[in-house]
Amino acid sequence: MEKIFRKRIESLFSKLAVEDIDAVVLTNPYNGFYFTGFDCAVATILVRAAEPVLVVPRLEYLRAKKETVYGEVIGISSYEAEIGPYERVFIGKTWDLVNNILSEYGVRGKVGVDRANLKVDEHEKLVKTLSREITDITKAVVSLRSIKSEEELKAIRKAIRVAEEAMRRASNCLEKGVTEEEVASEIERVFRLNHADRSFNTIVAFGENAAYPHAKPGDRELKEGDLIIIDLGAKIYGYCSDITRTFICGKASEKQLKIFNAVLEAQRTAIESIRSGKKAAEVDKAARETLKQHGLSAYFNHGLGHGVGLEIHESPTLNPASKDTLLSGMVVTVEPGVYLERYGGVRIEDMVLVVEGGCEVLTSFERLFF
Amino acid sequence: MEKIFRKRIESLFSKLAVEDIDAVVLTNPYNGFYFTGFDCAVATILVRAAEPVLVVPRLEYLRAKKETVYGEVIGISSYEAEIGPYERVFIGKTWDLVNNILSEYGVRGKVGVDRANLKVDEHEKLVKTLSREITDITKAVVSLRSIKSEEELKAIRKAIRVAEEAMRRASNCLEKGVTEEEVASEIERVFRLNHADRSFNTIVAFGENAAYPHAKPGDRELKEGDLIIIDLGAKIYGYCSDITRTFICGKASEKQLKIFNAVLEAQRTAIESIRSGKKAAEVDKAARETLKQHGLSAYFNHGLGHGVGLEIHESPTLNPASKDTLLSGMVVTVEPGVYLERYGGVRIEDMVLVVEGGCEVLTSFERLFF
Repeated sequence: MEKIFRKRIESLFSKLAVEDIDAVVLTNPYNGFYFTGFDCAVATILVRAAEPVLVVPRLEYLRAKKETVYGEVIGISSYEAEIGPYERVFIGKTWDLVNNILSEYGVRGKVGVDRANLKVDEHEKLVKTLSREITDITKAVVSLRSIKSEEELKAIRKAIRVAEEAMRRASNCLEKGVTEEEVASEIERVFRLNHADRSFNTIVAFGENAAYPHAKPGDRELKEGDLIIIDLGAKIYGYCSDITRTFICGKASEKQLKIFNAVLEAQRTAIESIRSGKKAAEVDKAARETLKQHGLSAYFNHGLGHGVGLEIHESPTLNPASKDTLLSGMVVTVEPGVYLERYGGVRIEDMVLVVEGGCEVLTSFERLFF
Repeated sequence: MEKIFRKRIESLFSKLAVEDIDAVVLTNPYNGFYFTGFDCAVATILVRAAEPVLVVPRLEYLRAKKETVYGEVIGISSYEAEIGPYERVFIGKTWDLVNNILSEYGVRGKVGVDRANLKVDEHEKLVKTLSREITDITKAVVSLRSIKSEEELKAIRKAIRVAEEAMRRASNCLEKGVTEEEVASEIERVFRLNHADRSFNTIVAFGENAAYPHAKPGDRELKEGDLIIIDLGAKIYGYCSDITRTFICGKASEKQLKIFNAVLEAQRTAIESIRSGKKAAEVDKAARETLKQHGLSAYFNHGLGHGVGLEIHESPTLNPASKDTLLSGMVVTVEPGVYLERYGGVRIEDMVLVVEGGCEVLTSFERLFF
């Protein structure tokens, strides 16, 4: 396991070689996890050819010691307090500690920082405290993380299996009179009993509520003729899954069928257009054009998809403005939708792995229910 | 309802009067919720004596229209796309739209911004785009939000009732062999069936896992003699609750009893010291000193508590470095804890309302189980 993380750090530094960067300080905890295996560091310090150093809130010190696969852990406390005999805690400010560590490692040159994650006040403190040249390396980390390794794909596939078990359970609950909350509860129970947690707020939307792409489950009871959108994801070993299915209570009307089939066709067209080297914006366009032919593109009010990994939304982005290019090893969602005010909506979402010349659809739950 | 929000906006502007601020732009969605009733705005624009304007992601437009109690909603899309007949969407950049709206309202003077929430890149764009003097008004909003109104207290009390029902359910599950995940699942089921959701990641920690203050529920089975920490909170109508109890499986050992009683005494001492006008750091000190008398203060590795409201952690902060003063109407947690590596931990957490001359303990779940 340790080897995996060491290799990732080597890859990062080789990406950064041209910029002549001596050390990297990461403040996005997901970036920290990617290089160390622990998910709550306030700063992760990477120095070429050395073990990472994780700065964690004092209360996370013991958990960090247990869960960190590769790296040395130091707790941080902003105030004077008695410290336990088994703790290694620095009392003071995070950036002073980071500065000390960089000095201990003899770092004199440029320091890379994942600037995109920083709040304006933190950034000011960092710039003031680190008496070194700082450069933004967000893009290098984002691009590394966007290409999934075999180990990462294994975790993602596991997260998908749990999500699909939850979708199966949900689909078996869809009797008239059940509430959105009851279905959400069943879904999250399946996650817990499979050693997973949700990777985002579970969406269960009945009837007119299915017109809200990010609906929150409420006490709405299922009625005959309702469209039903269920969007769920499990998180396991740190990795997320994300799948949406649209069901119907009873027999679908002609209008419902028309919308459903248009969305399904849009998704199929988009998936068929995916291959390594393809522009993400073009994949979005494939779906949008299909919906346009059905007179429904004005009701597709969001982007087509997004990368999934340690974060539920990560690089690349699939929408009309995206500058991203799809590459082998990326895992993305493909999720066209159509939403009609006071009526409901249809969204169908699958996860795919981009490969040379095409893609592998990772989710396998059936899409058709009527 | 609309009146409540209008009054809050008036209060904010009267707080800001000395600074001569003409308009306020909020990017923390909780701040937006506080003044409008909607929880996902990317920018909430407040102009003195006018209705707020909410800028929301296009996909949230319909939900925002439904849920916003006070304010006008505009969707934002960063890319060209066909727009539905019932939508009001601006295609372009958020800060250009905000700038246009401020101009429409004739705002020429200073604009207040909740700077603490802004990421460094967003802040740069904002400064570049808004051709107006900008000033940080985070503190004014934080201090307004820290004093709870009657309506807010009603929501918090409701969130506490749901949390305590979940704690009751959890306490009834604590049979040997049950796993942390199973208990967490039962807790979250109670939330859902009471029209609530969790307000933070539920903590259920058995035995040695109770040494991690922020443990994640796993497949650890409950064993005779285990200390059990359960830390849970419900969220309803946007408001959070937060309560922790420590149980034991079977008969408590002398050592367990000693730790438990010390933590209980620390909590009691701290709660008894609370009154309007008291320094938050002194309340923390009351708890820490009590634990010191028991030789346990080195194992209390976090602050004593925090404000609770729309966010699970908000102002004020109760720790040794806090500069906050407790005031009537604040709702805070009091949660001393002792954590021993490879052994377990004890934390007892209640929510209290600060009043003149004392405090009202809002949580009522019994603290003693052996």
